[in-house]
Amino acid sequence: MMKTQIGSLRNTLRAEGLDGFIQPRSDEFLGEYVPASAARLAWLTGFTGSAGLAILLADRAAVFSDGRYTLQLAEQTDPAIWERHHIVETPPVEWLQAAAPGAQIGYDPWLMTANAVAAYADAGLTMVPVANPIDALWADRPAPPASPALAHPPEHAGESAASKRARIAETIAQEGADAVLLTDPHAVAWLFNLRGADLPHTPTVLCFALLRRDASAIIFIDPARVPPATRAHLGAGVEIVPRAAMAQSLAALRGQRVRLDPATAPIHFSQLLGDAGAITVSGGDPCVLPRAIKNPVEQEGARVAHRHDGVALCRFLAWFAAASPEGGQTERSAAAQLLACRSAAPGFHGESFPAISGAGEHGAIIHYSVTPASDRPIRRNEIYLIDSGGQYPDGTTDVTRTLWTGPGAPPQKLRDHFTRVLAGHIALARARFPQGTTGPQLDALARAPLWEAGLDFDHGTGHGVGSYLSVHEGPVSFHRLGKPIALAPGMILSDEPGYYEPGGYGIRLENLLLVVPSPVGAAKPFLEFEPLTLAPFDRRLIDPALLAPAARDWLDAYHARVLATIGPALDAAARAWLEAACAKL
Amino acid sequence: MMKTQIGSLRNTLRAEGLDGFIQPRSDEFLGEYVPASAARLAWLTGFTGSAGLAILLADRAAVFSDGRYTLQLAEQTDPAIWERHHIVETPPVEWLQAAAPGAQIGYDPWLMTANAVAAYADAGLTMVPVANPIDALWADRPAPPASPALAHPPEHAGESAASKRARIAETIAQEGADAVLLTDPHAVAWLFNLRGADLPHTPTVLCFALLRRDASAIIFIDPARVPPATRAHLGAGVEIVPRAAMAQSLAALRGQRVRLDPATAPIHFSQLLGDAGAITVSGGDPCVLPRAIKNPVEQEGARVAHRHDGVALCRFLAWFAAASPEGGQTERSAAAQLLACRSAAPGFHGESFPAISGAGEHGAIIHYSVTPASDRPIRRNEIYLIDSGGQYPDGTTDVTRTLWTGPGAPPQKLRDHFTRVLAGHIALARARFPQGTTGPQLDALARAPLWEAGLDFDHGTGHGVGSYLSVHEGPVSFHRLGKPIALAPGMILSDEPGYYEPGGYGIRLENLLLVVPSPVGAAKPFLEFEPLTLAPFDRRLIDPALLAPAARDWLDAYHARVLATIGPALDAAARAWLEAACAKL
Repeated sequence: MMKTQIGSLRNTLRAEGLDGFIQPRSDEFLGEYVPASAARLAWLTGFTGSAGLAILLADRAAVFSDGRYTLQLAEQTDPAIWERHHIVETPPVEWLQAAAPGAQIGYDPWLMTANAVAAYADAGLTMVPVANPIDALWADRPAPPASPALAHPPEHAGESAASKRARIAETIAQEGADAVLLTDPHAVAWLFNLRGADLPHTPTVLCFALLRRDASAIIFIDPARVPPATRAHLGAGVEIVPRAAMAQSLAALRGQRVRLDPATAPIHFSQLLGDAGAITVSGGDPCVLPRAIKNPVEQEGARVAHRHDGVALCRFLAWFAAASPEGGQTERSAAAQLLACRSAAPGFHGESFPAISGAGEHGAIIHYSVTPASDRPIRRNEIYLIDSGGQYPDGTTDVTRTLWTGPGAPPQKLRDHFTRVLAGHIALARARFPQGTTGPQLDALARAPLWEAGLDFDHGTGHGVGSYLSVHEGPVSFHRLGKPIALAPGMILSDEPGYYEPGGYGIRLENLLLVVPSPVGAAKPFLEFEPLTLAPFDRRLIDPALLAPAARDWLDAYHARVLATIGPALDAAARAWLEAACAKL
Repeated sequence: MMKTQIGSLRNTLRAEGLDGFIQPRSDEFLGEYVPASAARLAWLTGFTGSAGLAILLADRAAVFSDGRYTLQLAEQTDPAIWERHHIVETPPVEWLQAAAPGAQIGYDPWLMTANAVAAYADAGLTMVPVANPIDALWADRPAPPASPALAHPPEHAGESAASKRARIAETIAQEGADAVLLTDPHAVAWLFNLRGADLPHTPTVLCFALLRRDASAIIFIDPARVPPATRAHLGAGVEIVPRAAMAQSLAALRGQRVRLDPATAPIHFSQLLGDAGAITVSGGDPCVLPRAIKNPVEQEGARVAHRHDGVALCRFLAWFAAASPEGGQTERSAAAQLLACRSAAPGFHGESFPAISGAGEHGAIIHYSVTPASDRPIRRNEIYLIDSGGQYPDGTTDVTRTLWTGPGAPPQKLRDHFTRVLAGHIALARARFPQGTTGPQLDALARAPLWEAGLDFDHGTGHGVGSYLSVHEGPVSFHRLGKPIALAPGMILSDEPGYYEPGGYGIRLENLLLVVPSPVGAAKPFLEFEPLTLAPFDRRLIDPALLAPAARDWLDAYHARVLATIGPALDAAARAWLEAACAKL
């Protein structure tokens, strides 16, 4: 089957005079998730991981992914066809430059940015935009998602779409553009206060939009997907145009300056704008920073969502504390239990990402995704890591707890490692800092207690989080290589240091933090964090001697707040458990 | 007098068809210090600060400097002639663009980099390189420095100049150049193991050099300044050519690729290389990173220099502890006393920068430089800050201590501020971190204890330090905006957080730290710091309750080391003082 596909595709390429073809994992929305209808990489190679790229030549073929997927890549792809490479150690550009110097390489201009295409061209390859040849060969292709576009109402959005359009229109006008093409569905969702169900974990509708400097706009989407209530919500200033008519619609921009982000927009848009006679102006997505700064309604919504999520989580934790020393649970059954608890939460609209449920050595696989094949029992006296989150119209949650199953006491080495991760988490959570400080500047605070013992973790300390949108939202982060963007009141980031002993266990402790003004700071304004997540940290794994007095005080105050907020919503048994879990250290 | 100079200069410009002229503070070596013979900015404007720039137009004139010099600029320059501006708030490019749009502006191509000239040209000004018109008008100009170029011997340098030349030649050859022009005298000093006395605080000879890919070289300097012993030290591969013959010498590079740093080299070199028919290749100074990594001999030299410097410093501190409660001292007399103590140290070759000796409110002026006019008594019961350093052939020192004069006890607010600065200093000094970590990543560790109370300081946390070279040496730093260069064993940086209460007092605590391998770190190599500086911190200003147990342990261990190392070299009275100063908290 797969060999037939490859042969057919090679025939197509030969007929078009191409030496090869590049198929990335993404679809034309270049996002984190891809609907089944756009899973071309999986169709071509069998590989279903969330990051990767395939290059097919007449006599060679290679598929690339990152370190998270080394094993999965080997299992899912046929070594008789595919060379399998680590995308960082063997960059596709370099592989192709060596394998087929100067070759004619086809690519789908909907699936690659101008910057990505330029990297191949700079390496001496002749890059040829083509209609994706896979589409003609893919017989049993699923239909694309077509969920209705629904209004995200003012009581959750906190600012009307008209007000947002006016704000962003002013920004782009000031920066010298007549219009901006928004090619990221998350930008469209935020700007127009629209949500949908095209993807499993992020409540967006997959579409593009154009905003003009007079604040009028077009959304490029099948009009059948926009119910009358949504049309009323959008108002007179917003036109709905089917994707098929986009080129025609853009022709009205002749001679105008249209802003487009060459780092994130499919290169096809530059070609479309060129064909339309418009002048392309390079510039970042103007919605990114305003979206990151949650307004007071969104901030209060985040608090509400985290209270609901905290009740669900604490019910799960109470259940786990009782069930895990008995044995009999597995990674899948525990994740299902947590999902059942969340499903009872008011407004729960699904998980914000596939839960990472890893016992023992599976916890050390940073992006572990349990499958029926990988599922394993959660044993007595071991460590269990659960990283999960929910989507609520009020807000998006993301939380990780690392638990001891019992009934015995954990070894001291584990307590040492856990407490260092916790000390790092707390150091960041209780940080105060002057306005102007960036997330990357604070990353070391969360690592120092681990570094002290020669330990570290190989991922960022935290990412931005959307408001009933993507759980991974730019532009801010606590990543040392992240963008140097000043933290501002209203931003929400995760604080999630970890420690991973390969083949042994994984520890990660994650709360979401809201940036708020700090009462300190006379000479200049200071900021601090308000933890949004409400769930206790497993005290059996804490060695209080390893926490500084200020960190112990923070933890006691946090636990007291968890108990006071969540306790009243629990039944007697769960509340009794929570009282013990939240007692002073 | 000054008005005559301005008038003559305007006549010259008019005669040459120029609308104006730019005179920066620097000379052709673009370094931190400028010899009296090159103090053209002071000649023109009267302003003697270490950073600034003047622009003279036919009907307007402006002089720019930074916040450190606002007062001095106003005092030293004539408001009837000069508009005085803050160089950051009113950038000279913008001022000139507004004052004389599109004008013909003369500049001395020896005094500006290609990048600097490009900034003016990009602003629409026509930039005209000219022979500096000041030189023809400056009647009583001092002779340029002409100290002999002396060998920095192997027992201090630790690597022969021939070996360094071979290393750097290999680097530039690998990166595709046939030769490199070294326009920074510090690079020449390091590469050829040469030192001199052209400047008061940095033991360099002011000269340029060319290194070819075969490791042969030319130093452009008056041959009379190179004694036979130095010629023997340099060996057969190094030619000495007078500056006047440089153009002639460069003509041999016709058709060759010559590396030059457009960010740091005077633009005149691009013009010289162009005239010579050479191909200019942009690239950073290849000596910068190798120079920053001190070899084992230099590291041991740094330890020796710091022991000598520590004895001098502790003698001074013991004297100060006895003298200051009596009163009668001034900022100048105390600085003179410290210099006298240092002068007795083996190998002392002078201060590595002008000591900052500030009592009370003067301590809050970050770059305070005491003059006969500003000198003030050091009073009883106040804070005194002394930041100073020495040049020794073994190494360069830089240390700041903040002292309580007594005899009373300091107010609690002072102790709180002092202890927070100390906590930050210690947090950085005791940090461990994985190889690959950069200095900017660690900056927040030194600020967190201040931030916690809403306090901060408006300078970097630390800078690189040379080995019997500049006390401010790139490329590494603990500055949040510093270059993201990985810290490596052998690098020396200062750790100097502070707190400044304008009009009140200044606190700064500075040790030099040597980057060394850490015993921790199993999965990957870790690094840590060895404090080089040996002098106690004033315990009267420490509130032990504000220090975490680990910080207290660090301080006790540090003080024990100071006592064990320095104590035996002191007389009985000073030793008794040191024993008390170094007792456990």
